[in-house]
Amino acid sequence: MLNKNIENFIGCDSDFENADIALFGAPFDGTVSYRPGTRFAPKAIRAESFGLETYSPYQDRDLTDLRVFDMGDLELCFGNTPRVLDEIEKTASEILSAGKVPFMIGGEHLVTLGAVRAAAKKHSDLRIIHFDAHTDLRGDYLGEELSHASVIRRCHDILGDGRIFQYGIRSGDRPEFEWAKTHVFMQKFDLQNIETAIEGANNHPVYLTVDLDVLDPSIFPGTGTPEAGGASFEELRKALFFAMKNTNIVACDICELSPHYDPSGVSTAVACKVVREMLLSI
Amino acid sequence: MLNKNIENFIGCDSDFENADIALFGAPFDGTVSYRPGTRFAPKAIRAESFGLETYSPYQDRDLTDLRVFDMGDLELCFGNTPRVLDEIEKTASEILSAGKVPFMIGGEHLVTLGAVRAAAKKHSDLRIIHFDAHTDLRGDYLGEELSHASVIRRCHDILGDGRIFQYGIRSGDRPEFEWAKTHVFMQKFDLQNIETAIEGANNHPVYLTVDLDVLDPSIFPGTGTPEAGGASFEELRKALFFAMKNTNIVACDICELSPHYDPSGVSTAVACKVVREMLLSI
Amino acid sequence: MLNKNIENFIGCDSDFENADIALFGAPFDGTVSYRPGTRFAPKAIRAESFGLETYSPYQDRDLTDLRVFDMGDLELCFGNTPRVLDEIEKTASEILSAGKVPFMIGGEHLVTLGAVRAAAKKHSDLRIIHFDAHTDLRGDYLGEELSHASVIRRCHDILGDGRIFQYGIRSGDRPEFEWAKTHVFMQKFDLQNIETAIEGANNHPVYLTVDLDVLDPSIFPGTGTPEAGGASFEELRKALFFAMKNTNIVACDICELSPHYDPSGVSTAVACKVVREMLLSI
Amino acid sequence: MLNKNIENFIGCDSDFENADIALFGAPFDGTVSYRPGTRFAPKAIRAESFGLETYSPYQDRDLTDLRVFDMGDLELCFGNTPRVLDEIEKTASEILSAGKVPFMIGGEHLVTLGAVRAAAKKHSDLRIIHFDAHTDLRGDYLGEELSHASVIRRCHDILGDGRIFQYGIRSGDRPEFEWAKTHVFMQKFDLQNIETAIEGANNHPVYLTVDLDVLDPSIFPGTGTPEAGGASFEELRKALFFAMKNTNIVACDICELSPHYDPSGVSTAVACKVVREMLLSI
Amino acid sequence: MLNKNIENFIGCDSDFENADIALFGAPFDGTVSYRPGTRFAPKAIRAESFGLETYSPYQDRDLTDLRVFDMGDLELCFGNTPRVLDEIEKTASEILSAGKVPFMIGGEHLVTLGAVRAAAKKHSDLRIIHFDAHTDLRGDYLGEELSHASVIRRCHDILGDGRIFQYGIRSGDRPEFEWAKTHVFMQKFDLQNIETAIEGANNHPVYLTVDLDVLDPSIFPGTGTPEAGGASFEELRKALFFAMKNTNIVACDICELSPHYDPSGVSTAVACKVVREMLLSI
Amino acid sequence: MLNKNIENFIGCDSDFENADIALFGAPFDGTVSYRPGTRFAPKAIRAESFGLETYSPYQDRDLTDLRVFDMGDLELCFGNTPRVLDEIEKTASEILSAGKVPFMIGGEHLVTLGAVRAAAKKHSDLRIIHFDAHTDLRGDYLGEELSHASVIRRCHDILGDGRIFQYGIRSGDRPEFEWAKTHVFMQKFDLQNIETAIEGANNHPVYLTVDLDVLDPSIFPGTGTPEAGGASFEELRKALFFAMKNTNIVACDICELSPHYDPSGVSTAVACKVVREMLLSI
Repeated sequence: MLNKNIENFIGCDSDFENADIALFGAPFDGTVSYRPGTRFAPKAIRAESFGLETYSPYQDRDLTDLRVFDMGDLELCFGNTPRVLDEIEKTASEILSAGKVPFMIGGEHLVTLGAVRAAAKKHSDLRIIHFDAHTDLRGDYLGEELSHASVIRRCHDILGDGRIFQYGIRSGDRPEFEWAKTHVFMQKFDLQNIETAIEGANNHPVYLTVDLDVLDPSIFPGTGTPEAGGASFEELRKALFFAMKNTNIVACDICELSPHYDPSGVSTAVACKVVREMLLSI
Repeated sequence: MLNKNIENFIGCDSDFENADIALFGAPFDGTVSYRPGTRFAPKAIRAESFGLETYSPYQDRDLTDLRVFDMGDLELCFGNTPRVLDEIEKTASEILSAGKVPFMIGGEHLVTLGAVRAAAKKHSDLRIIHFDAHTDLRGDYLGEELSHASVIRRCHDILGDGRIFQYGIRSGDRPEFEWAKTHVFMQKFDLQNIETAIEGANNHPVYLTVDLDVLDPSIFPGTGTPEAGGASFEELRKALFFAMKNTNIVACDICELSPHYDPSGVSTAVACKVVREMLLSI
Repeated sequence: MLNKNIENFIGCDSDFENADIALFGAPFDGTVSYRPGTRFAPKAIRAESFGLETYSPYQDRDLTDLRVFDMGDLELCFGNTPRVLDEIEKTASEILSAGKVPFMIGGEHLVTLGAVRAAAKKHSDLRIIHFDAHTDLRGDYLGEELSHASVIRRCHDILGDGRIFQYGIRSGDRPEFEWAKTHVFMQKFDLQNIETAIEGANNHPVYLTVDLDVLDPSIFPGTGTPEAGGASFEELRKALFFAMKNTNIVACDICELSPHYDPSGVSTAVACKVVREMLLSI
Repeated sequence: MLNKNIENFIGCDSDFENADIALFGAPFDGTVSYRPGTRFAPKAIRAESFGLETYSPYQDRDLTDLRVFDMGDLELCFGNTPRVLDEIEKTASEILSAGKVPFMIGGEHLVTLGAVRAAAKKHSDLRIIHFDAHTDLRGDYLGEELSHASVIRRCHDILGDGRIFQYGIRSGDRPEFEWAKTHVFMQKFDLQNIETAIEGANNHPVYLTVDLDVLDPSIFPGTGTPEAGGASFEELRKALFFAMKNTNIVACDICELSPHYDPSGVSTAVACKVVREMLLSI
Repeated sequence: MLNKNIENFIGCDSDFENADIALFGAPFDGTVSYRPGTRFAPKAIRAESFGLETYSPYQDRDLTDLRVFDMGDLELCFGNTPRVLDEIEKTASEILSAGKVPFMIGGEHLVTLGAVRAAAKKHSDLRIIHFDAHTDLRGDYLGEELSHASVIRRCHDILGDGRIFQYGIRSGDRPEFEWAKTHVFMQKFDLQNIETAIEGANNHPVYLTVDLDVLDPSIFPGTGTPEAGGASFEELRKALFFAMKNTNIVACDICELSPHYDPSGVSTAVACKVVREMLLSI
Repeated sequence: MLNKNIENFIGCDSDFENADIALFGAPFDGTVSYRPGTRFAPKAIRAESFGLETYSPYQDRDLTDLRVFDMGDLELCFGNTPRVLDEIEKTASEILSAGKVPFMIGGEHLVTLGAVRAAAKKHSDLRIIHFDAHTDLRGDYLGEELSHASVIRRCHDILGDGRIFQYGIRSGDRPEFEWAKTHVFMQKFDLQNIETAIEGANNHPVYLTVDLDVLDPSIFPGTGTPEAGGASFEELRKALFFAMKNTNIVACDICELSPHYDPSGVSTAVACKVVREMLLSI
């Protein structure tokens, strides 16, 4: 008796009920102002993960030691952003309700808003640790409030001042940088001072969101708006490990891989390795 | 005294007021369900047009014989489809009011709806001649009525039965093909029977819309949803010439070039040549 | 309760026991002498099939009318060709034993040998209809008898003279063409005379193998050894339909898509459409 | 004792003195106005020829039946066009003096001028048969007389009226087409009427020059200025065979492959096949 | 009343007469010995600049604070290098005469010679600060003195010893490195010791030329002759800022972006960011 | 009298008998489990070496000072791994017998086994210095002992404990890392502690093998299994120089360049530069 074809991120073949972590893809890029294509990221990451080992010599841990479930991708409709966010929130809430950690693979960065809504409903004292090249703090973008350039501002609408910790920021307009000074913690240009986030989190629940363009375009060219001057893979790996080991991560995501701008496939391979290291650190 | 840098489609450097035809780009692809990227088409066509001659040996005419104005691209906001269509309609109306022919370069196919609204307001007896691989006749797509898969159905909402003439159609779902039988003329698979459109137009004003994926992917790979079995360049060139010479074209467009899926640049070169031949046939 | 991620060719979501046709991938390219990469084809076809409609206007049939099972890809080991062929034979035999039609997606052309062995064991009077640019009739390749350049010769070892019908052949060495004259039917250069295969099959069971490089490289560039002067998509579609409707197909395959040589994605889209049309014709 | 690495077009390993035909590359693209890169063509053709068979089923002949010498590429200096042409002329003359047929692989089309000068010095009654998408008949290009857009006009300066036969022409400016009417034979758009060239050659020596962009960009995207509406491979193959079998070819070339605009490699594969068929027809 | 399409580098929309800085493109690559294509750089930079913010968090300055004019690209003729240099000199002189800073975007590195001639005519005490992977100090290249491999040697012909300061040099032939020891200051391999240039400039007017291949190919692959072991973006950004803030820049350029060797688009994005940072530092 | 076309790595045009070093290509990738294509590396490296200078400013030495012979590529048969290794061993032995240093360019990493067999036959006290991202220490891969994932384990079968020194290792499965602890020296993650290898070699003969994926994918994307977190070019260059200057290298190789995954060409350029620096350090 032959079985249907199940595809998951390498080593993540647990059933939902037995899992501690639940992966899902959010293939949406409908508000992207420049180069689209992050909609293709979760499928690409799942497929290319088989070029990776399940074992991490950095952490001396193996994905096969964990129990991770991969439900595949949500079916999201382009052209109706509010509905997309509702569906993401619903899925994240279902995972959280079952006592598991949702691990979302975007998609553009706006998808974070759906999952943060779910996490904030469960955890009123939620903090956000945010790795990114861009502030994502605009009030609106050409009049639209739901934009990948505004997603962290929308999260701030929910959480308020002093709860958001940004790292690696090196692009935005002047008003965003001005606004940030009084509302969030922003580490410009590099990933130093992770301690500030750990102290700020102070054992409260943390949502971790990683816009992969925080990496330098040399190692991560496959993204919509590459910004030179970013972190090396090792800098990101160490910062993530340090942050995750010292905080209480209740949900997380990575986003902004755009595989069609990655003809050598390196960006997707990097994204897979980041996912593995994050899974092993939760 | 040095001058600012003006960029237009080759040979189309007339002022607006002296022009007979007004080119503009509609760089929008926000409802595309599969591979996006048509937002980059109008800029690519304008830039690559300089690889083309202004003279057509097919028609023995030259773009320098015409008076064509090129206003560049509209600035359109992703994430608000109705507003995008309003802005397109406004521009097309302004051109039509000035007694000129709007020639729009998409963008995804939904942009046609904005220009058709403008043309139908001026010409209540408007007909549409439509070249495409896809029917674009869905009632909705995942619940959204404003979709590139529904654009001709939305045009039918305005014009009614017997006014739309489709050519080259070879993809759609079964209900679309069923619906078409009683509402539009559909030439499946090829570009034969242009006479039917000419007779149906019967000297009424005609809007001509060319989804470039009507071409075979061998000659036009750079599009979101390539469909094998399409027209050769010569078949399209002849059909367009025959249709345009025998009808009263009041507005037109081409759409669905996606230059980032065209690494050899051939699709953009083909699109430029189609634009030249169409301009010379109006 | 969330479910694991099942991936199948679009519309092919039947269980095995209820299915009439069983799809499986054979991701092997270990004997390829020139450009490898067909190992990536079955996954690419499955993923890209969602850019296709399930409905065929050519046949006025829909994949949702059928019952097709997709078991995903075999796990095959590079470096041990005989073992690879054994595993393919075993899977094809299991499908045939259950009274279903195996539909294999290669991989290089040598994978056909495994499935033909299975089919010939069940059907001693088996015929082969073969679409290809290349004869694949070498006795050996640099001394190796199990080679993608020898696969049809190896099939002839099993079936004997007069049972193999080749179409579209336009490349090989001189001895292959000489040998063919007395052992197989070969239609050189084009897909004419399908009647000869239909008459030769004479209601006996038929294995149909489609090396997609029978198509012209203009429409199918993504293959290891592209040969100019091939069939158009329409020519192949019509020949396949005619052959399949008039013979008793007990097993079939397509092979030799190499997606990494297909930067625009057109070859994979074409392969998906060929699969759909073949599924609807069985 | 190990030997140095000799690289030649497949099957062309004769010594110079024993050869009937002498291949050489002219890797120059210094006057190209748009997309450069034909400098890389001869090396690419030589390397990729090993994906081809030496046997042609079209002609039932094999390269191993011939004696062809391949001397590799000339070392040409960018920035000094007259000197480049002198070096090409010198090499072609040396081959012609030895009683052999020079077969040059460009490079841009201007390289033809060097070889034509050599051939015309030996054969005062020389004719030219010219396959191309472009007229190449400009008097000058931005003031420069030595340009790939003027190469056939420069050949006419040497040969005079009635000696040049053009096929497949579908691009140029209006004055070129006007000038052509009284000075050369021009078959516009297709490859019909090869008889005219055969009759015009009337057993006089013929220089055959093939600008590969005469092919449709669907099958030959890898060129600087692709022009839709060209010949299929089969049309070109048949026309070349017919012309070469019925005229006295004393020298020939192919040019304008630009391999870096050919990511799938198909254009280079096509060029290799054209070279093989031409070699077998001399 | 609709207006013609004006395209400029983002934020550089001043009129000429009101501007302090005047941008222009020099799309020439006629002497390049290896991979050409820098002719496409200025258009690519202008188009892609819209993926960038006008605000620099590094300098806390914004392009909208400046007055920069962008005149587009010069029309330069391939095949006549002296004339090309004359036209560049003429334009640079016109800008300098108007009291503005010319900012040229190449093109290959030889274009610098035209602009240096203009600057040296106005400022007899001119110094050059030069960032590059290559010495560019050859006496000639295959006999041609006007070559991108000789451009700085030609500048030395004008300025003489002790006026040229090179940084990042890691490629050249042995005689170039020997020659450099007594004629120019050369910082091999890295961008240390910018102080030497600042002291050497000693408030004299400075021409700054940035061959972008000074960057490591990891962050800047899109160039004709990539040389591993180069500067990171941050190293270049800091060195440029330090040099520009402490010298009197009267003219500058960047060159050697070859966008067609940059399939992910990262090199063009980096070039845009370098242009922004340089504009904000003048 | 014209000569045949000889192609060699730049500056390596010595005859075999006069040479001190003999280059050869081993274009085999038959056991690669993921992305194949290293078969194309030696030809690509030879062709692209002409974009490099023969002079190294790092070492102040020039390839023209050396006597290096380049015999081109072995003709290896896919599908018979033992025979491939025999042919490599035979060639390496012939070079070693003549008292010269074999310098092999792979191909996948398994080719190293053939050359190590030859070197170990001549030098029973052979040591191996190994740069790689991967351990390559598996006992077998899916049951096959001859695999690119097992190559160093197979070398250990010959040499035994304490003779192998690994650098840069950052990927493998857990048992490989466990096994390594007692059998080889492994420097994880970086290229520190080269002294350990120098001391361990202790003037015994050394085989140096460089899997180029030891480099970070930012600078070397063109490989089958890119692993983020690797060495920069400068780190590798310095480590190689230090190791080679302080040990007795009797044979060496580089492998795992896969040029078709390197659309910008940077990886091949890097490989060429590594070859030059290694040649100059022997």
